[in-house]
Amino acid sequence: MINSDSINQGLVHKRFEFKSAEDGSVYIIDADGNQHIASALWLRERSTAEDTQSRFNHQRLVDPWTLSTDLALEKRVIADDGRRISLTFSDGHHCTLTIDDLRDDFDSDDGLPSVIGWTGDLPLPRATWKAISSTDAAFMEALQTFLRFGFLLITDVPCRNGMVLEVGNRFGCVRETNFGRYFDVRTTDNPNDQAYTALALGAHTDCNYRDQIPGIQLLHCLVNHATGGESTLVDGIAVSQALKVADPMAYELLTKVMVRFRFKDADTSFLSRHPLIEHDAEGVFTSIHFSPRTDFVPLLEAGKLKAFYEARRKLAQMLESPAFEIKFRLNAEDLIIFDNHRILHGRSAFDSHGERHLQGCYIDKDGPASLFRVLRDRYSNVAEEIEK
Amino acid sequence: MINSDSINQGLVHKRFEFKSAEDGSVYIIDADGNQHIASALWLRERSTAEDTQSRFNHQRLVDPWTLSTDLALEKRVIADDGRRISLTFSDGHHCTLTIDDLRDDFDSDDGLPSVIGWTGDLPLPRATWKAISSTDAAFMEALQTFLRFGFLLITDVPCRNGMVLEVGNRFGCVRETNFGRYFDVRTTDNPNDQAYTALALGAHTDCNYRDQIPGIQLLHCLVNHATGGESTLVDGIAVSQALKVADPMAYELLTKVMVRFRFKDADTSFLSRHPLIEHDAEGVFTSIHFSPRTDFVPLLEAGKLKAFYEARRKLAQMLESPAFEIKFRLNAEDLIIFDNHRILHGRSAFDSHGERHLQGCYIDKDGPASLFRVLRDRYSNVAEEIEK
Repeated sequence: MINSDSINQGLVHKRFEFKSAEDGSVYIIDADGNQHIASALWLRERSTAEDTQSRFNHQRLVDPWTLSTDLALEKRVIADDGRRISLTFSDGHHCTLTIDDLRDDFDSDDGLPSVIGWTGDLPLPRATWKAISSTDAAFMEALQTFLRFGFLLITDVPCRNGMVLEVGNRFGCVRETNFGRYFDVRTTDNPNDQAYTALALGAHTDCNYRDQIPGIQLLHCLVNHATGGESTLVDGIAVSQALKVADPMAYELLTKVMVRFRFKDADTSFLSRHPLIEHDAEGVFTSIHFSPRTDFVPLLEAGKLKAFYEARRKLAQMLESPAFEIKFRLNAEDLIIFDNHRILHGRSAFDSHGERHLQGCYIDKDGPASLFRVLRDRYSNVAEEIEK
Repeated sequence: MINSDSINQGLVHKRFEFKSAEDGSVYIIDADGNQHIASALWLRERSTAEDTQSRFNHQRLVDPWTLSTDLALEKRVIADDGRRISLTFSDGHHCTLTIDDLRDDFDSDDGLPSVIGWTGDLPLPRATWKAISSTDAAFMEALQTFLRFGFLLITDVPCRNGMVLEVGNRFGCVRETNFGRYFDVRTTDNPNDQAYTALALGAHTDCNYRDQIPGIQLLHCLVNHATGGESTLVDGIAVSQALKVADPMAYELLTKVMVRFRFKDADTSFLSRHPLIEHDAEGVFTSIHFSPRTDFVPLLEAGKLKAFYEARRKLAQMLESPAFEIKFRLNAEDLIIFDNHRILHGRSAFDSHGERHLQGCYIDKDGPASLFRVLRDRYSNVAEEIEK
């Protein structure tokens, strides 16, 4: 399903160009042939001139809000077959932009592989720790798989205490929580969380009671002699999209009502409110938050409350449907890494007499995306060097 | 401005009670006398019965979405002057709830002191490290001040390398970033960020290019012999509210348009999109993100783009207005801790020949809130013990 051809697809440079109209306006033609009029201020903000952009860090050296919103273009000269433009502005500034300087502005994928929603028939995406930890090519392929599907099974991870941190640090910055830098998942007396029991856990996301819910979780299996205790994963994107199609009103309600999530122990008292399905400011899905053990629905007006409960029930039924769920046994040396804002995880109950011991940790949400872009740029530059 | 009386105000137990109507419905009367009808399922979800709520961690042992949304109340008996209710449900479940079990459901402040927006005439809220690190009472007062105003100046912090981590760990979990567990702020050659130059920095928030922007920043001054380099802080809540009153359309636009923030160096390539003023799913302000050095406005349709630039300019002008800004010199042993989702920070340019050396780190957004609730509960229980 994943091969190096698909990695390279992201690197193909599509056709972009500058164009100017008779009235002096500058247009940008994007890869799909759409024309976008570019205002003087918008272009001026992107100036790469030495007095405007730091040559060390490419950060801007000026505050563009101080420029007049009536800034105009005095001169524009397009060269290099539409790939380069020289601009003189009404404030006297002069700069040259290449179309590549603006590529990020028209990349709705933000330099990442496109997300692929998945259902219960997905073959488990796998990689070996040996490959990931030794070559950039294998690591980049693993990152791509993770970014597409939201999770990855890594095999042959040595069964050492704290090894989960080493794998975590390969993918991003470990994020310490109230459970420590890493935590042991096995049955304990007086558990401060139900993870540390032999109970079944339905599909859920972790730590919804945090303001800034940990973005990515790793679970490394050190021992599994238990009967039962199979792992389950569900794609929150696929389920949310299916719910939106099946019942748009239910979906809408789940994006609007903020649910209180709560965690308390002797040293910690977290409380945070999130809708079960979260949108960004432009109404695009960003994340799912679901944990039927730590959530408190607000006391809405009676009709709305009932509608919310019905919507939540529909979501929950889809989340536990075999049509959406993949189920597998984590064995010693297996590690799963998954996006805790997208993928719900669970486990079946297990016999607490057979030992089962996992170690887990969280890492920053944007670690894999950052590393993917770094590697893509590094190898895309190599490819360009070779072409020349 | 802050005294122990105001701490105790949060602890006063307001009047809450259960009431039942002739048709058998259960109502909850909140502290303001408002009546809320409570559905059977809503009450059932909050059952503290042994088979429903873990006695170890108070997490629910059942998935309430599996219960019928038509669940009904068979019996309700109110006792203890409206403070206790015994309930029997149509699924046979029985439980007793006290009104205190539901207190969190009616606390719009989530157990925290109310936020106070501030302007340029705010006397600098201060605390000494000695007091904070030695007594719970002083620490709780410091937490309250931080939660109200979004920042706090801590004095007498020993000038040791990495001391900023010790202070950070008192307030929450240190969050490592691409800049390390802590970072040095002083002029360097080939700076990968403009913080590490002698340039003036206008009011900004940090790391807007992260998906999950670090929530709280600490800056500890080890040396300041520079001429210039004064620190500035502005309250993003006060400024946003003022903008909303002055120009509601501008405010609205800033909450809707998602701006791309970008950071790149040899090992890192972060990209994230946020509106400059961010709302939650219910339209309530949550955060401000402003950094005129790393932001890229999308190429909107011409009229909307101009309106956005004008709105951004209004926001920026307010952010740099002396009416909103406080300005002070950080001296050796001073440390500021501030909410990076609310408070903008900046500095004037300084003479790079006079040494200026700060160390900084980030901690989790919800650390101080969690600690405040833990201490409040601890001392509220002590107070109740004494009353009995």
